[in-house]
Amino acid sequence: MTSDELQRVLALLETRRADSLNDLLEFASIPSVSAQPQHASDMQRAADWLTERLRRCGPLTAEQWPTAGHPAVYAEWLGAAGAPTILVYGHYDVQPPDPLERWHTPPFTPTVVGERVYGRGVSDDKGPLLIAVQVADAYFSALGSLPVNVKFLFEGEEEIGSAHLPALVEQQAERLKADFVLSADGGMWSADIPSLTISARGIAALEFTVRGPSKDLHSGRHGGSLHNPLHAISALVASLHDAAGRVAVPGFYDGVQERSPAEREATRQLPFSDEAYLAQTGAPAGYGEEGFSTLERQWDRPTLELNGLWGGYTGEGSKTVLPSEAHAKLTCRLVPGQNPERIPGLIEAHLRRHLPPGVTLEVRHSDHQASAYHLPAGHPGRRVAREVLAQVYGRPPLEVGMGGSIPVLETFSRVLGIDTVFFSFAVGDEDIHAPNEFFRIPRIAQGQHAWALYWTLLAQEPHA
Amino acid sequence: MTSDELQRVLALLETRRADSLNDLLEFASIPSVSAQPQHASDMQRAADWLTERLRRCGPLTAEQWPTAGHPAVYAEWLGAAGAPTILVYGHYDVQPPDPLERWHTPPFTPTVVGERVYGRGVSDDKGPLLIAVQVADAYFSALGSLPVNVKFLFEGEEEIGSAHLPALVEQQAERLKADFVLSADGGMWSADIPSLTISARGIAALEFTVRGPSKDLHSGRHGGSLHNPLHAISALVASLHDAAGRVAVPGFYDGVQERSPAEREATRQLPFSDEAYLAQTGAPAGYGEEGFSTLERQWDRPTLELNGLWGGYTGEGSKTVLPSEAHAKLTCRLVPGQNPERIPGLIEAHLRRHLPPGVTLEVRHSDHQASAYHLPAGHPGRRVAREVLAQVYGRPPLEVGMGGSIPVLETFSRVLGIDTVFFSFAVGDEDIHAPNEFFRIPRIAQGQHAWALYWTLLAQEPHA
Repeated sequence: MTSDELQRVLALLETRRADSLNDLLEFASIPSVSAQPQHASDMQRAADWLTERLRRCGPLTAEQWPTAGHPAVYAEWLGAAGAPTILVYGHYDVQPPDPLERWHTPPFTPTVVGERVYGRGVSDDKGPLLIAVQVADAYFSALGSLPVNVKFLFEGEEEIGSAHLPALVEQQAERLKADFVLSADGGMWSADIPSLTISARGIAALEFTVRGPSKDLHSGRHGGSLHNPLHAISALVASLHDAAGRVAVPGFYDGVQERSPAEREATRQLPFSDEAYLAQTGAPAGYGEEGFSTLERQWDRPTLELNGLWGGYTGEGSKTVLPSEAHAKLTCRLVPGQNPERIPGLIEAHLRRHLPPGVTLEVRHSDHQASAYHLPAGHPGRRVAREVLAQVYGRPPLEVGMGGSIPVLETFSRVLGIDTVFFSFAVGDEDIHAPNEFFRIPRIAQGQHAWALYWTLLAQEPHA
Repeated sequence: MTSDELQRVLALLETRRADSLNDLLEFASIPSVSAQPQHASDMQRAADWLTERLRRCGPLTAEQWPTAGHPAVYAEWLGAAGAPTILVYGHYDVQPPDPLERWHTPPFTPTVVGERVYGRGVSDDKGPLLIAVQVADAYFSALGSLPVNVKFLFEGEEEIGSAHLPALVEQQAERLKADFVLSADGGMWSADIPSLTISARGIAALEFTVRGPSKDLHSGRHGGSLHNPLHAISALVASLHDAAGRVAVPGFYDGVQERSPAEREATRQLPFSDEAYLAQTGAPAGYGEEGFSTLERQWDRPTLELNGLWGGYTGEGSKTVLPSEAHAKLTCRLVPGQNPERIPGLIEAHLRRHLPPGVTLEVRHSDHQASAYHLPAGHPGRRVAREVLAQVYGRPPLEVGMGGSIPVLETFSRVLGIDTVFFSFAVGDEDIHAPNEFFRIPRIAQGQHAWALYWTLLAQEPHA
């Protein structure tokens, strides 16, 4: 493939700018919330829309792969004989939009405001995912072919832990064979400076309920003589961390691989400002495990975070109730050396050891788990990504970690034996998983340029 | 008034049993939830229904007294020259029915099951309140007059702290003049053994919010580097009690009047079983301040109870959020010697002292407060109540405390200078403030007998 051919692809993408944005406005108007059963038919609508969009690209085969949960959408084009094969990964499901009252525009009416489009899922992951599809479309339109073999796998359960994807990948392992995964999920940490994510934390999840009396009681009549589940759950939650911000669960840090002094120094050299970070998040001060910087706390250290805590009367006014139950949801972020299957058991044992008298404890384990991930230095997909980003942005990318988790990475590694290169054009400040999620519209063109260049450069790499 | 005249009243009440129950079915079908703005028109409907019901009793004057909140319903008959005047107190508002899914019958479709009627407010306080009205009705029908002068004051804000009643009582002090209050609110502690409540705990309330980042964040990306408000609020709540079950807020116990050894012994002699209490409430074990029995913890010791605690994602499935805010509602029950205006400030100071770094605290004080109450020994209203209950039940009543609070008691004492005698026929196990609240139908007839006898016996007392 010549530089001239690439220019024709880029020129075509340039003429399709409005179409590209319209794709996203249409796709993001489908409320594909995988966690909420009432959106089951919207999930199917989103899968259908995406399948149809892939078919419109050209000589791709596109199909849906059912799972025990939401279907995955798969497409492939394998006409580049002798060239590498990449597996493009993304997800069409989105987070619940709650709390709804905090949105300034309706979450499922994608709204353009200046250079941003607002809506649930525009940044995580519908916008970044469409970039890959639109690049394939442009190659087919301009040249009739792609420079590399491409397989697309877009799942519908990323936001609920990709529970059924491992079985699907095992079942379809033959068709999914590729040299590596190029992930449209993930994100860069700044809109101005390109970055390449070389690690992701793992995850483990747990829910628990504390029960006292078998029904809600009057807190005047009974208060003081029975243990209040809200007091008991607070004591349990408080016991999970020590005063130095460390997780207090025995065994939690077993096997954690500490970063080398050189790696820690590289992280310290990154252009990161605690002041700017606090201004961006609105938190009054940083807080975390003593002895580590903010970026180390986000990338290199494991966490235990409550995601939800509730019980008793939460409505308007007062209700003098001694509630029967209190509930908590938590997730841990894990680093290399921690086993996501072992962590929930350690937490449960800790909770049972600290359970106060007068209440009972029910712990529900979750299949939402994944190991931490690290992309090896010298991987060809990492080398190409560095080169592409250097050309598109005029400077080499920073190599950074990711605090979040993509459970499917572990599946690709374990089942297919391949690594994953993150190549998303989302930015970390785009309020994913929060109200007013947005995506930067200029990143669509930048992302398309980068993905088009990536495929061309990869085809020129000595095949591994 | 002769014993024969009383018999005619009782006989008439006997013929009206079905009507009496129908009154309650009708009244309790009006969802008069004072705490919830969406029920404002239902509150007015309930006030109108009650006003109309009073007018149907006979030569009573009945009217509504507006307040800055929900109106009070007032009625009087002052034709018993030279006889004592009693002020009958009750409330027509009810608690919110949440959690709705725990009700076996619709909360506002009162449902008769065997000897019970189920519905929000049937026990607290619509059933007990109607007994007094129905007794007046029967006296007028049978005899054309009452043996004592009677004033009825039924408020619509008891469940939200009777915030506007003090101003109303002050404004109407002249019309409300009476020898004492006979309260249709309150309750006996058993359906089989009569009891007379001689004390009530006071109340003070507080809400607080802990804030971290200015918006919900992704717990993978940000977790570990900012303080999670759910962790911070749990630590705050856990700090409010010590390991011995005592409230850990400095100054909280200042001025608390300890019971004398004789009083503690009298409480110990009451027929109360911890085993039966746990079986009734379904709690796995008792819990509370060390060194005190269950009844002392309920009647004689102050408490600090969380009524609601919430933050983050509480819906189905998982949402990996580091929430911006966490919220708590709490109420204290107070005993003689504690000042309800001082307690919230002590709690706020404690919370501020224990506030962890990385979050801010907002405390909202409430006007839901009342002092503890104690009915003097030798009060004529207490003497008559003992005699009535001994006649109706064939044994003298137990003298017991009340864990809950009726803020208006303090108002009657302070503004009108009069004491309050509790004379409700609700029973403490009727799930008031909880799902499946019920009232025992035979208690309607017993209560009518007792109220009718009370008025006759009071008229025969040497006038204080």
